[in-house]
Amino acid sequence: MPELLPRARSSQESVFARMSRLAGQYGAVNLGQGFPSDAPPAFLLEAARRAVGVADQYSPPAGLLALRDALGADLGVDGADVVVTAGATEALHLLAQALYGPGDEVLMLEPVFDIYLPQARLAGATPVTVPLRRTEAGRWTLDLGEVRAAVTPRTRALLLNSPHNPTGRVFTRAELEALVALARQHDLWLISDEVYDELYFGERPPSLRTLAPERTFTVGSAGKRLEATGWRIGWVACPPGLAGNLAALRQVTSFCAPTPLQAAVAAALPVARRTGFYEGLREGYAARLHLLAAGLRALGAEVDLPGGTYFLMARRPGWTAAALVEHAGVAVIPGDAFAARQPAPGGLFRFAFCKAPAQLEEALERLGRFGQTSPVHE
Amino acid sequence: MPELLPRARSSQESVFARMSRLAGQYGAVNLGQGFPSDAPPAFLLEAARRAVGVADQYSPPAGLLALRDALGADLGVDGADVVVTAGATEALHLLAQALYGPGDEVLMLEPVFDIYLPQARLAGATPVTVPLRRTEAGRWTLDLGEVRAAVTPRTRALLLNSPHNPTGRVFTRAELEALVALARQHDLWLISDEVYDELYFGERPPSLRTLAPERTFTVGSAGKRLEATGWRIGWVACPPGLAGNLAALRQVTSFCAPTPLQAAVAAALPVARRTGFYEGLREGYAARLHLLAAGLRALGAEVDLPGGTYFLMARRPGWTAAALVEHAGVAVIPGDAFAARQPAPGGLFRFAFCKAPAQLEEALERLGRFGQTSPVHE
Ligand SMILES: Cc1ncc(COP(=O)(O)O)c(C=O)c1O
Ligand SMILES: Cc1ncc(COP(=O)(O)O)c(C=O)c1O
Repeated sequence: MPELLPRARSSQESVFARMSRLAGQYGAVNLGQGFPSDAPPAFLLEAARRAVGVADQYSPPAGLLALRDALGADLGVDGADVVVTAGATEALHLLAQALYGPGDEVLMLEPVFDIYLPQARLAGATPVTVPLRRTEAGRWTLDLGEVRAAVTPRTRALLLNSPHNPTGRVFTRAELEALVALARQHDLWLISDEVYDELYFGERPPSLRTLAPERTFTVGSAGKRLEATGWRIGWVACPPGLAGNLAALRQVTSFCAPTPLQAAVAAALPVARRTGFYEGLREGYAARLHLLAAGLRALGAEVDLPGGTYFLMARRPGWTAAALVEHAGVAVIPGDAFAARQPAPGGLFRFAFCKAPAQLEEALERLGRFGQTSPVHE
Repeated sequence: MPELLPRARSSQESVFARMSRLAGQYGAVNLGQGFPSDAPPAFLLEAARRAVGVADQYSPPAGLLALRDALGADLGVDGADVVVTAGATEALHLLAQALYGPGDEVLMLEPVFDIYLPQARLAGATPVTVPLRRTEAGRWTLDLGEVRAAVTPRTRALLLNSPHNPTGRVFTRAELEALVALARQHDLWLISDEVYDELYFGERPPSLRTLAPERTFTVGSAGKRLEATGWRIGWVACPPGLAGNLAALRQVTSFCAPTPLQAAVAAALPVARRTGFYEGLREGYAARLHLLAAGLRALGAEVDLPGGTYFLMARRPGWTAAALVEHAGVAVIPGDAFAARQPAPGGLFRFAFCKAPAQLEEALERLGRFGQTSPVHE
């Protein structure tokens, strides 16, 4: 047989898919992969049931007009600058293909959402990570000097994610302004992965786009916002004039996003905004965050409190991801899944708290039992 | 602003998306883009309405187990060798990325389904087309000598499509056997785009995979089979051992296919097979083919009868795609949309007959009226 290209030689399952598979296998409570255990809101489900049988055929590659317009209104941009994608994942894949290639570098922060690395490599480019530093108090800080020092003549883009997976860090306006100044100085594209834009616990996260509309691509996800991660509806809001290029490219990656689910999201977005759905989501998640963080602390774990996302990071001596899923019956994501260079940030695990309170309680109880049979060695 | 990469500089809409847009704009009967005007079957729609609210979150990148198993049973392969994709389009995109890159050539037949070309180029490879020759009688023939002559040391794969869009050609077992012999001699991958596998008007098309299971990737589409082109569920059946590689790659292109629609297709596939849905589909399309072909001939057009797909090719002096959509009120696809080298096969147009009989009749009437105001000049 001929060989596969080097870019296809890995058959490694992502850590998220793997932990979900192991959770199923061991009957573990799944606090690993970032999907909610609650059903999506009824107004979204009903819109989908109505769309099925009505909007079943190809839609325009840039997206259903109704959805682009709804996104434009929601994001405060022109719907003509929005391209609908097969989840934020495809949006990020398209941006990698469009913005950097062989010989180019793209800057990103570490811990890094794992797919950024293979997406950059598939595009032929080199991902370069700048570490966030974790303080004693469990706060993750960005050293702008380190970002500046990482820029080379080959740097084409800066890929940011705020609220940040896995640390929960929300970057401040001042930090974003400094990054924008750097991007302008070196003429870099800005990719702002804002899939958790509605999931925060303090002030609303500032949007990078408002600071640099001429060079910012904003990536979003209906899966994260509307609790339907399997529907595969994402988007990218482009600098004016570039949506046509991304739409042309996505014609060859998957042609268009699933039409009935686009129609449903188009109907649901204004309802979510009008009825305070996101406020309710945040309140619910704040309570679950509190439940999980307090419970983990009671078990002797060190817990970093996130400013956004539905993840927290925690650690406790004696934990390993393999032992937790297999013996404790709790699936989590090991922190080194987000490391581009070794070693990973010291023994941290990512816990998803987008799960029913009963599941969080069950996980805490299991961790407690596991802790007793495998005591803390310090 | 920095530049976009060359591979993203085009913002050209595909001819299919453009003709659908123009059809809307001019109120034309849309015999252009290949999507049915009928709704998908009730058993599929009901399965989707049941899946929504139940199967809404991420699924494994390779696909829901139930769907892979259903496809395995349907295609007569091991479900473990099947990867579910965001339509056949994404399957073809993944195969291009996995099988050929810079310096490689991939052979395909011309007229060529348009996305094969940009997909090969996005992968960094060079598409090389071998022409099908059209006889006086409107039959498209494959010259195996021409295929053989086009193979070079750089050739990595042969990309076939049968039943063939746009000509409707179904390749014979003898032709496929000769191509397999060539692929074995030069150690080429075989990609067999069989999205129209259930849409034929004579004998069941032979499946390439049965002749060369060790090197054939078979691409299929629930959109085409189950009349739901907007649902974006496709698949690829791989040679044994390679599904994991494609699944790993698709994690970074769109992560997984839409979960509720996968669940619906998994439920629908055995029903479609058991209840004779495909036989009914073929009978219905045979009748529509006859209606359209007879009607076009009555208008003085020359018509090529397809062996499969839901397209026919026809020509008549005085027709242009622009005039037909704008002035006749009928959208079709110009034959040169399928040409990789100029000139295109002599003035042919592709007509989709996957439309309601009333729409086909309306189109014929409009073409008749247009013919009178714009007489045949010969
Ligand atoms: C930071 C970040 N970006 C992108 C994605 C992918 O989102 P989607 O499911 O819409 O593809 C995720 C999913 O977890 C994420 O955490
Ligand atoms: C030959 C061929 N291959 C692939 C496709 C794409 O199929 P899908 O809609 O499943 O992406 C089409 C669509 O028209 C086609 O005609």
